Amino acid sequence: MATTTSHLTNVKSTVHFSCISNQHRSHLTTKLKPTTVRMSMTQTPYWASLHADVEAHLKQTITIKEPLLVFEPMHHLIFTAPKTTVPALCLAACELVGGQRQEAISAASALLLMEAATYTHEHLPLSDRPGPKPGPMIDHVYGPNVELLTGDGIVPFGFELLARSDGGENSERILKVMVEISRAVGSGGGVIDAQYMKTLGGGSDGDEICHVEEIRRVVEKYEGRLHSCGAVCGGVLGGGCEEEIERLRKFGFYVGIIQGMIKWGFKEDHKEVVEARNLAIQELKFFKDKEVDAIKTFLNI
Amino acid sequence: MATTTSHLTNVKSTVHFSCISNQHRSHLTTKLKPTTVRMSMTQTPYWASLHADVEAHLKQTITIKEPLLVFEPMHHLIFTAPKTTVPALCLAACELVGGQRQEAISAASALLLMEAATYTHEHLPLSDRPGPKPGPMIDHVYGPNVELLTGDGIVPFGFELLARSDGGENSERILKVMVEISRAVGSGGGVIDAQYMKTLGGGSDGDEICHVEEIRRVVEKYEGRLHSCGAVCGGVLGGGCEEEIERLRKFGFYVGIIQGMIKWGFKEDHKEVVEARNLAIQELKFFKDKEVDAIKTFLNI
Repeated sequence: MATTTSHLTNVKSTVHFSCISNQHRSHLTTKLKPTTVRMSMTQTPYWASLHADVEAHLKQTITIKEPLLVFEPMHHLIFTAPKTTVPALCLAACELVGGQRQEAISAASALLLMEAATYTHEHLPLSDRPGPKPGPMIDHVYGPNVELLTGDGIVPFGFELLARSDGGENSERILKVMVEISRAVGSGGGVIDAQYMKTLGGGSDGDEICHVEEIRRVVEKYEGRLHSCGAVCGGVLGGGCEEEIERLRKFGFYVGIIQGMIKWGFKEDHKEVVEARNLAIQELKFFKDKEVDAIKTFLNI
Repeated sequence: MATTTSHLTNVKSTVHFSCISNQHRSHLTTKLKPTTVRMSMTQTPYWASLHADVEAHLKQTITIKEPLLVFEPMHHLIFTAPKTTVPALCLAACELVGGQRQEAISAASALLLMEAATYTHEHLPLSDRPGPKPGPMIDHVYGPNVELLTGDGIVPFGFELLARSDGGENSERILKVMVEISRAVGSGGGVIDAQYMKTLGGGSDGDEICHVEEIRRVVEKYEGRLHSCGAVCGGVLGGGCEEEIERLRKFGFYVGIIQGMIKWGFKEDHKEVVEARNLAIQELKFFKDKEVDAIKTFLNI
C-alpha cells in the first residue's frame, strides 16, 4: 500500500499542506483514501472480506422503504462513505478472543454507521466553512439540509441496531460497548475533539505548514480512538477477559495511528508508522496462544 | 396558558402562516415557546419541578471541563434550548406505575439532551436554508461549525448517560428504552421524519397557507412521538406492566398533540386540542387505582 501514497513523505518534522484550511485537508484526504482502499481491494486483504460481511448485514437491515425521502439518502450516504478498517477490526478482535464473527456484527455495523454520519457532517457546506477550492470535490448528491438530517438519523439508528441485537443474555456486554462507542464518536476525547482540532484549532505556524506532531494528535483522537474502540467492542462481545480487552484497546489504538498517518500521506516506513507497528506487535504478544495472523494484517504487514 | 397564545386560533381548517418557509416557522415557534414556558413557570406547574430535577442531574453530570472548546458550547446549548414537557413526562410516568423518580432520571436527561441537539441542528445556517428574516431571531453565540459539532457530540453523550446508568440488574430495561429513544429521535417515524416534512415537504397550497391537517401530521411525528417515547421510557424504567406501558404510549402521544398544537398557536379550546385531551383522559382511566392527579397536569387542566 505504501507505493500508492503521495509525495508528502519522509519529511522530518513538517509536512507541507495547509493546517488552517479544512477544505484543503478534506481534499487531500479524499484524494488519498479511495486510492488506499482500491489497492487493498485488489489484494483482497483480510479486512476487506470482514468489511463486506458488515456491509451485507447492513444492507439486509437498512432496506429502502417509505418514506423514500428519508431512506434513499440514508442508504446512499451510508454505502458511499469511504471505507475504513474500524468495523472489520471489531470483528477480527471478536474472533481473536474466541468469539463468533456474528456476535460482533451489530457493533461493527454501528461503528460503520457512526463513521458514515461523521463523514457526512464533516462535508456539510456551512456558512462559516470555506467555499469550494480547485481539485477533486466531494460529490454532494443531496442538499445540505438532507445531509444534515440524514447524519442525524444515522447515529440513533446505530444505537438502535446495537440495542436490538441482544437476545436477552448479553445485555451487559452491549451496554459496555455502547459506552465505548458513545465516548469514541462523541465528546469523550475522540472524534468530536479531533474535529474541533481540525476545523478550529488551525496550525501554529501559519497557513501552509503542519507539524507532524499536530497531525499525530488529530490522528490519535480520530483514527486512534475509533480503531481502539472497534477492537475493544469486538473483545467485549467475543467474551474476552479484562486483560485481553485492555491489550486490544492499545493494539487498536496503534492500528489507528498506522491507518491514520497513511491516510494523511505518510509512507509505511515513516518513523511514526514503524513505531506504532512495533508497539502493536508488542501488544499482540499477549495473545501468543491465539491465532494472531488474521488481526496482524491490520498492521499492513 | 391559553391566553398567552396568538391570534392564530379558532380557525376551521387552515392557519395563515408559511408552510414553505422554515425560517418563518422557527420564528413563530420561538415567539410562542418562551411565552408558554414563562407562563408555566409563574404557575409553577408539576412538570416544571420535575424538569428542574432533570436539569439539576445534568448539571452535576456535565461539568465544564477541558477542552473548554468542546464543553463550554455543549453546556450552553443544552441549558439554553427551549424547555419541553418530554423529560418531565418521563419522570411522571415512572412515578405513576410505582417507580422512583431516580430510576428514570437518566432516561429523562437523555431525552433532554436529544431535544437540545435537535434544536441546535434545526437552527444551523446551512447554504440551502433561507437567510435571516425580520423578527426575533435565534441568538447564535457560537458559529455554525461549533453548533454542528456540539449537536453531534450531545447525542452520543445522551446514549452514554443511559448506558452508564445501569447498576447491573436493570440492563434489559435500559436497552428497551434505548430502542424507544433511538426510534423517536431518529428515522423511526419520529423527529427526523417531522423535520423532513417541515423543511422539505412544504405546503400543498402555496407559500402562506398551512392546513391544520399538515400541522397535525408534523406535530404527531414530532411532539407526539417524543412525548409518547418519554412516557414509555418512564413506564418501562418504573417497572410498569406491558398494558400500562402501552396505555402510557398513547397517553404520551396525546400529551404531545396538545403541547405541540399549542406551540403552533392553537388555543386550548381548539377542536384538535380538546379531542386529544379527551382521548388522553380515556387512557388514564386504566390507572384508576393509581395516583393520576400529577400526570393529569400535562393535559393543561
